[in-house]
Amino acid sequence: MLHGHQTWLFKNKPVIISTATVGGPFEAEGPLANDFDILHGDLWLGQDSYEKAEEKMLEEACEIAIRKAGLQKQDIQFFLSGDLLNQIISSSFAARTLAVPFLGLYGACSSSMESLALGSLIVDSRGGNNVICGTASHNAAVEKQYRYPTEYGAQKPPTAQWTVTGAGVALLSTEGEGPRVTSATIGKILDMGITDPYNMGSAMAPAAVDTITAHIRDLQISLDEYDLIATGDLGRVGHKIAYDLLKKHGIDFPEDRFTDCGILIYSADQPIVLAGGSGCGCSATVTFGHIMNRMKQGELGKVLIIATGALLSPLSYQQNESIPCIAHAVSIESVH
Amino acid sequence: MLHGHQTWLFKNKPVIISTATVGGPFEAEGPLANDFDILHGDLWLGQDSYEKAEEKMLEEACEIAIRKAGLQKQDIQFFLSGDLLNQIISSSFAARTLAVPFLGLYGACSSSMESLALGSLIVDSRGGNNVICGTASHNAAVEKQYRYPTEYGAQKPPTAQWTVTGAGVALLSTEGEGPRVTSATIGKILDMGITDPYNMGSAMAPAAVDTITAHIRDLQISLDEYDLIATGDLGRVGHKIAYDLLKKHGIDFPEDRFTDCGILIYSADQPIVLAGGSGCGCSATVTFGHIMNRMKQGELGKVLIIATGALLSPLSYQQNESIPCIAHAVSIESVH
Repeated sequence: MLHGHQTWLFKNKPVIISTATVGGPFEAEGPLANDFDILHGDLWLGQDSYEKAEEKMLEEACEIAIRKAGLQKQDIQFFLSGDLLNQIISSSFAARTLAVPFLGLYGACSSSMESLALGSLIVDSRGGNNVICGTASHNAAVEKQYRYPTEYGAQKPPTAQWTVTGAGVALLSTEGEGPRVTSATIGKILDMGITDPYNMGSAMAPAAVDTITAHIRDLQISLDEYDLIATGDLGRVGHKIAYDLLKKHGIDFPEDRFTDCGILIYSADQPIVLAGGSGCGCSATVTFGHIMNRMKQGELGKVLIIATGALLSPLSYQQNESIPCIAHAVSIESVH
Repeated sequence: MLHGHQTWLFKNKPVIISTATVGGPFEAEGPLANDFDILHGDLWLGQDSYEKAEEKMLEEACEIAIRKAGLQKQDIQFFLSGDLLNQIISSSFAARTLAVPFLGLYGACSSSMESLALGSLIVDSRGGNNVICGTASHNAAVEKQYRYPTEYGAQKPPTAQWTVTGAGVALLSTEGEGPRVTSATIGKILDMGITDPYNMGSAMAPAAVDTITAHIRDLQISLDEYDLIATGDLGRVGHKIAYDLLKKHGIDFPEDRFTDCGILIYSADQPIVLAGGSGCGCSATVTFGHIMNRMKQGELGKVLIIATGALLSPLSYQQNESIPCIAHAVSIESVH
């Protein structure tokens, strides 16, 4: 199972039997709108708080994934989820609604691949069948918690990113039709001393590169094996840094096959997003929506997703701490 | 591996090759003082914030466990940890110091057994060797975040509990000397509609009972197999409720072998603790300190630890949500 230092090679290759993604109004205006199962025009989703709206999106994604797989709630064995809200309340409350055994995670925006890696470990080791892995984020809930009330209209520098309003989940099973999870590389914390929460992409880029190089080293492979390599949410600034750092490490991967979920999700005519998308929902919706769809259509055979997370809190920032970052990579293969 | 609905039976029985516990001034006055590796007389631990003091305790516990096992940091493959602070900063920053692949978890006070369960899954499935599982909490950091500034001297009802200042970790390995982890039951969310954060024991008791009954059902065993069953941090109020609920379910276990980490850690002449101990560090320090010591001395052969977590946040409380609770159970056996 363990290959090298930090990579799990899954012998039984857990199958992603279904996925589901839910988005909000900004995602509906983006180029990946057609890849979402549901798009909400209203940030509130009929709830009385943004936090409850986030929970609602996660619940909807779980319901849809279960339905698509032709299953019932009671067929689900485990639910693995985390989010950005304090004490991961949207995950915990969604777990209350799902009423299945729950493992709460916290990896900030790396939660999508942390949950997929751990879920795959469970399914691969026959520790469970029908495991839901996922995460969600909500732009307004996150702005409120991490930054300023949106009503202040605070200015942001162009390196800042825009938190995705969305939820994405994958339903893993020991057998069935769908792309298969083949390996996962668990990341270490990297902290380059960056303290600016409006420049997360730069802070997270070295963590992405560290995990990619660990992945290659552990599996003794070349990145050429992959049709697409997508980082989680580095945005335009961080993604460029990651590409340059990889080159410095002697890893020269074609730029057109190296992308970032935070770049893909919004278009150039959405200037509000600044350097691109971020948040737990970013890599989750892009991977489990857009990228899965391209795999199912036969456009992509083998992909590597590297979800990055900035593990700061508003308090650690106030206490002058720098931003510890992490990235977890998961490889997914189409089986035709 | 999976037995029944929600229980993992570990074929390779991961070995707890070492454990370490660190405590604070209130724990030093309690009856289990001798079971700690380090006791700090000062809540600050020489740091400039309570949050950094919490991180420091977790780092100390990891260092001691590694040293006791005769290993070096670089021998550790994975670190699994969670805590009560927003965005689990003490775990993430301790992971930065450890510099090993990190999986962040959030299960509130159930984090001790959530990390031990997932760590055991990794070791059992040969996904890694030398895995550190643990958690920490700090009384003053938690009071500040969840309740009122301590300087207010706010009154609390007698059902309230006292957050343990402490960190506890276990180092798991595929082989070596020590007690072995034999099974883990992953809990579901239970929410009985309780909204009072000063009565967590009552809120969490049904979750503990649900997980205990699932454990018995999944493994088709009787609780008589266990020399000791310890709930995480129900305190005096919640523990009594759990005992009564078990009886109602027809499960009659001798009261003297059914205990609670939140009751064990403090003594009757510490009235400040009210209904007993709580917090991530409670079940972690009592299990990895006191209970492990009793196992090593041959007093206990087989134990079941059920760590309970109240998955509320100050925000979910302010939004009039009730308290979703969870409990994860892990069985540990002495091998002589």
